[in-house]
Amino acid sequence: MKTHMMFQTVDWKNGCVVLIDQTQLPKRLVSVRCRRVDEVRDAIKKLKVRGAPAIGVAAAFGVLLAFRGVRTQKTQALLQQVKKASARLASARPTAVNLSWALERMGRLAQKNVNLSVSHFREALLNEALAIRDEDRSLCDAIGQHGAGLFKRGDRVLTHCNAGALATAGIGTALGVVYTAQDKGKNLSVYCPETRPLLQGARLSAWELVRRKIGATVICDSMVATVMKQGKIDRVIVGADRIAANGDVANKIGTYSIACLARIHKIPFYVAAPSSTFDFSISTGCQIPIEQRAPHEITQPFGQTTAPRGVQVFNPAFDVTPAKYITGIITDQGVVYPPYRSRLKKLLRSPCS
Amino acid sequence: MKTHMMFQTVDWKNGCVVLIDQTQLPKRLVSVRCRRVDEVRDAIKKLKVRGAPAIGVAAAFGVLLAFRGVRTQKTQALLQQVKKASARLASARPTAVNLSWALERMGRLAQKNVNLSVSHFREALLNEALAIRDEDRSLCDAIGQHGAGLFKRGDRVLTHCNAGALATAGIGTALGVVYTAQDKGKNLSVYCPETRPLLQGARLSAWELVRRKIGATVICDSMVATVMKQGKIDRVIVGADRIAANGDVANKIGTYSIACLARIHKIPFYVAAPSSTFDFSISTGCQIPIEQRAPHEITQPFGQTTAPRGVQVFNPAFDVTPAKYITGIITDQGVVYPPYRSRLKKLLRSPCS
Repeated sequence: MKTHMMFQTVDWKNGCVVLIDQTQLPKRLVSVRCRRVDEVRDAIKKLKVRGAPAIGVAAAFGVLLAFRGVRTQKTQALLQQVKKASARLASARPTAVNLSWALERMGRLAQKNVNLSVSHFREALLNEALAIRDEDRSLCDAIGQHGAGLFKRGDRVLTHCNAGALATAGIGTALGVVYTAQDKGKNLSVYCPETRPLLQGARLSAWELVRRKIGATVICDSMVATVMKQGKIDRVIVGADRIAANGDVANKIGTYSIACLARIHKIPFYVAAPSSTFDFSISTGCQIPIEQRAPHEITQPFGQTTAPRGVQVFNPAFDVTPAKYITGIITDQGVVYPPYRSRLKKLLRSPCS
Repeated sequence: MKTHMMFQTVDWKNGCVVLIDQTQLPKRLVSVRCRRVDEVRDAIKKLKVRGAPAIGVAAAFGVLLAFRGVRTQKTQALLQQVKKASARLASARPTAVNLSWALERMGRLAQKNVNLSVSHFREALLNEALAIRDEDRSLCDAIGQHGAGLFKRGDRVLTHCNAGALATAGIGTALGVVYTAQDKGKNLSVYCPETRPLLQGARLSAWELVRRKIGATVICDSMVATVMKQGKIDRVIVGADRIAANGDVANKIGTYSIACLARIHKIPFYVAAPSSTFDFSISTGCQIPIEQRAPHEITQPFGQTTAPRGVQVFNPAFDVTPAKYITGIITDQGVVYPPYRSRLKKLLRSPCS
């Protein structure tokens, strides 16, 4: 049985980038249509579209919007538009490497095709963006197939944030593995830490799981240690926003905490990510830029004031989990175990190209 | 310089129990006046008053409300009212032992004085409740004095939930130690995990600290591991809702997670609690009843829906931190270090009497 997709998180329709507005979930499943580059940039910044692979796909399509309304017969002029659009989109969020990976890929393709006619140039770029989308879908399927065997029948799984269909153009990474295992009859259930401040675990992962009729339990992030201690968790699986050459993983804030707690409670901790999430240009996780987000995400959830005036706020969007806490990394090329530096390099040749 | 109190969390005024309505903080500092036993019970259940010591004091005063409107000359009839009120109040929340401790103390006093006239009986019970309040204040001061020496100048402290003035009739337990150390010129700063689901860290601890002009930083609960890893935390200090004979500590959900993370990051982890919080009748933390609270605290914060219909929710209000993760327990009688079972027994003779 094939794990099917139930909605399209990010797509290209009638010359527009169409995104599910994830800030509206779980209340409403609505899409937004972006007609300008800066609308895509804004959608990424405001987390209407989020999840490292989905951001990459959205940015690739976003580049195409640079051509709207441009009436030139000079391909060189279009190349300049591509470069300008890429710079705008690349600055939307700093941590997920898929964003710059997709933009660099579009940029290379544009550079290579600068001698084509305007219409062929545009067509080539459209095809590249569609290929990035379709490949992301295939990468998710491959991750699912490689990872599903790691789960036992009846496993109770803990994830974090959302690394599901809403985070990719396919079935998801971490949740893609869950869905694939489920389709193989593994009968899993999933604990979803709510993932403060923006609650992607409660709002998005739980929503996906309920739609797929997989038993889902929402807990506060502070309850992870307790469910582990009570023997309710057999395995942890999370996604990634960037993975360094040594296997250190940047992912949603709280992931590192879960990895520490998994170690203490002797629970396997897996990361699932496509090759586009690896950044071999950096040696360790220390070099991954961590996005700091606005204090009001913590102190004014839903417009309600929850902290006094005059208090300081620290709001990193991501943390880095050292490779030593990671049992295995599930990629589209297979599952990698420590030592990561040599094995990742061997498995994923030139992953950022 | 003496650490002074800035407000009265729970008190007895003109025949009423007067409480700061903590559900309104940090927006409004307002008090509620309870005239009936069930109003106090409701205030405890709804967390208008919370914090183990404060609940104990509120319950002691709450017993006195059983006499309102009762026109009898039979002390025996009043004793029955005391018993009835105690049963109602005791069932408000199960975990904090201070609640039953205070009620048992009121009950014993009532039983002992059943031969007094009605007016003397009422006076004796009022005096006992006032004594419980005043003793709690003194216990806080003593905890502060014993604990302050554990902090070094400039220490960056992490606490959890609220174990401050709002949790007691005095300056607080964990935060009482911080205030006392600060008054001794220690120049501390404090990280406050927001403490989902009800945000007592952000709403209450940060509010107290800002009022006292102590540097306070609010973080999400999922960020504790990160601030520890970044070397931003020198010491952890938390309160307790019940401590077993072996030193296992029940406290706000998330405490156990912080204790695990403190161990991994080699950061001292202290618990501060008055003798009224110890329950030598139970051998280990496994026997402490853990309150499960309503799912909507997690899935409908502030009336907003943050999780899909059909999802399960697990919402324990407390967790148990095993004694092995606790560096020291700061009591009103002094600081206790492992092995706890023998040393606690020696220091705190008949603590639940």
